[in-house]
Amino acid sequence: MEKIRVGILGYGNLGRGVEMAITQNPDMELVGVFTRRNPEDLQIATEGVPVRSAADLDAGVDGIDVLILCGGSATDLPKMTPAYAGKYNVVDSFDNHANIPAHFAAVDAAAGEGGKLALISCGWDPGLFSLNRMMGNCFLPDGTDYTFWGKGVSQGHSDAIRRIPGVADAKQYTIPVDAAIEAVRAGEDPELTTRQKHLRECWVVLEEGADADAVREAIVTMPNYFEPYDTTVNFISQEELNRDHAAMPHGGFVMRSGKSACGNRFLIEYALKLDSNPQFTALVLVAYARAVARLAQEGQKGARTVFDVAPGYLSPRTADDLRSNFL
Amino acid sequence: MEKIRVGILGYGNLGRGVEMAITQNPDMELVGVFTRRNPEDLQIATEGVPVRSAADLDAGVDGIDVLILCGGSATDLPKMTPAYAGKYNVVDSFDNHANIPAHFAAVDAAAGEGGKLALISCGWDPGLFSLNRMMGNCFLPDGTDYTFWGKGVSQGHSDAIRRIPGVADAKQYTIPVDAAIEAVRAGEDPELTTRQKHLRECWVVLEEGADADAVREAIVTMPNYFEPYDTTVNFISQEELNRDHAAMPHGGFVMRSGKSACGNRFLIEYALKLDSNPQFTALVLVAYARAVARLAQEGQKGARTVFDVAPGYLSPRTADDLRSNFL
Repeated sequence: MEKIRVGILGYGNLGRGVEMAITQNPDMELVGVFTRRNPEDLQIATEGVPVRSAADLDAGVDGIDVLILCGGSATDLPKMTPAYAGKYNVVDSFDNHANIPAHFAAVDAAAGEGGKLALISCGWDPGLFSLNRMMGNCFLPDGTDYTFWGKGVSQGHSDAIRRIPGVADAKQYTIPVDAAIEAVRAGEDPELTTRQKHLRECWVVLEEGADADAVREAIVTMPNYFEPYDTTVNFISQEELNRDHAAMPHGGFVMRSGKSACGNRFLIEYALKLDSNPQFTALVLVAYARAVARLAQEGQKGARTVFDVAPGYLSPRTADDLRSNFL
Repeated sequence: MEKIRVGILGYGNLGRGVEMAITQNPDMELVGVFTRRNPEDLQIATEGVPVRSAADLDAGVDGIDVLILCGGSATDLPKMTPAYAGKYNVVDSFDNHANIPAHFAAVDAAAGEGGKLALISCGWDPGLFSLNRMMGNCFLPDGTDYTFWGKGVSQGHSDAIRRIPGVADAKQYTIPVDAAIEAVRAGEDPELTTRQKHLRECWVVLEEGADADAVREAIVTMPNYFEPYDTTVNFISQEELNRDHAAMPHGGFVMRSGKSACGNRFLIEYALKLDSNPQFTALVLVAYARAVARLAQEGQKGARTVFDVAPGYLSPRTADDLRSNFL
């Protein structure tokens, strides 16, 4: 069987994760890493695979079944995905929930015109968490949704701390409140405030001579980011931050609590515990890239989301094999 | 919008659950309950819906978009599903894992010939648990699968106890071992024996004059059913059994523990806690019946499983709505 040929655009944490994930999927092969930096400055892990300029993609590169777009959602993907969806089958991890409809429309237009297939907003949230939220609502029409995130690093919150005068570096963990999760599991259908659902834990390196109390106050009172939460602030050295907080763990819980027409209660819970957020996201992207390659080969075009992909397409196994061994 | 017209064949616990589930799905309506008993002896919960003989289905009934087959897997469904899949779009909950390939082939032939669509082996296991086992393997190719069932009533084990001389009635609960689940959650990738995964708890009513010790011994030494497990046997009165053990709770856990190519660990966990096994199964069948009605309208025919259904088809909402509100 021919392997599915995958290209990677962008070689940050996510791009490196995709490269690694491909090594765990023997039906797929990496055929090129594309970068907006100088290709000669980039050393990748896979031997024998070319590093090329993103500009080559604009000109047109043959032999790519799926291009996985590993840019950021803030500024990269809103331009990148529509730009490449007309020329390549693509997968992205666009995660700005509020802008998904606009992003979908732009990508759908480009992919439709180019006769290509594009899967947007893939990963675990949006992605697997979305699937579980959506399906939970189908199985339990009379119910309540809960999503908890963490324990995990929030890049946005870490950045917000680093912008405070006097802060040299920082890392922020979002932590779900155990008591809230237990109340949902107990079938109490709690109404939970923002503060009751998550804690925020900050590890901060001060610049020399900075006022710790002032920094702490600036953090815990920051509107939206920290004020609505119980926040703990810990000051440590740069060495300690580098040593103890370099990993990028994440995860969370999607729960649907509901009942039957006669009042019997049901709880559906989906939980992820991830040592590395980008590496797991990459594994999910690669499985969906397989689906995109196969659906494109069947002639599908335009934009899709995880809601549109029959699960069997994610697997390298045949339908017979899946029915015999997984049903 | 026209409602999806659903028929029910079989009015046991599952059929009654389907009837109830339809009331929670306003885009669907029950158009008939079919029975192999005398229809006049059957009182159903929904007013204005006819109870008809299963024989009418053989002759051909108009106006049914999907027929949900609520028979048992041992003897009913192997005949029932192929028999009706040629005339109606059908959904069944065939749960004899070893015989799924043969059942699929028989149903696929019948449905293909009749130009109808049939979804087999739907519910939560097989069904939602299958989906999570299969998808977990796609996202974590290097990993280990765990399925735990319970706490829940096992009909097969309860029946096995009732066949022992001296037993008037019995109920058996399958209970997952907490320590095993915690070891998986802790990333220990334990190798678990049958005994380490589940306990069996029996509640037994003795016939007058029966020897309790002999019954206990007959239970705990029963090959396959109880011998490989730690089993507790409790003797109670029929009144206590009726009062405290009439419900049909079930549930369980599907876990996939795996790692990235560089050794970062990931855990995916899907858990169900169900007050009523048949009522939850029914809610799942009804959501998949919606998908079957829509896919059949698109011209699909033949047999399908949950692996073949794109999740968006399960929802009464539009694709736009799903992207805006659930992605």
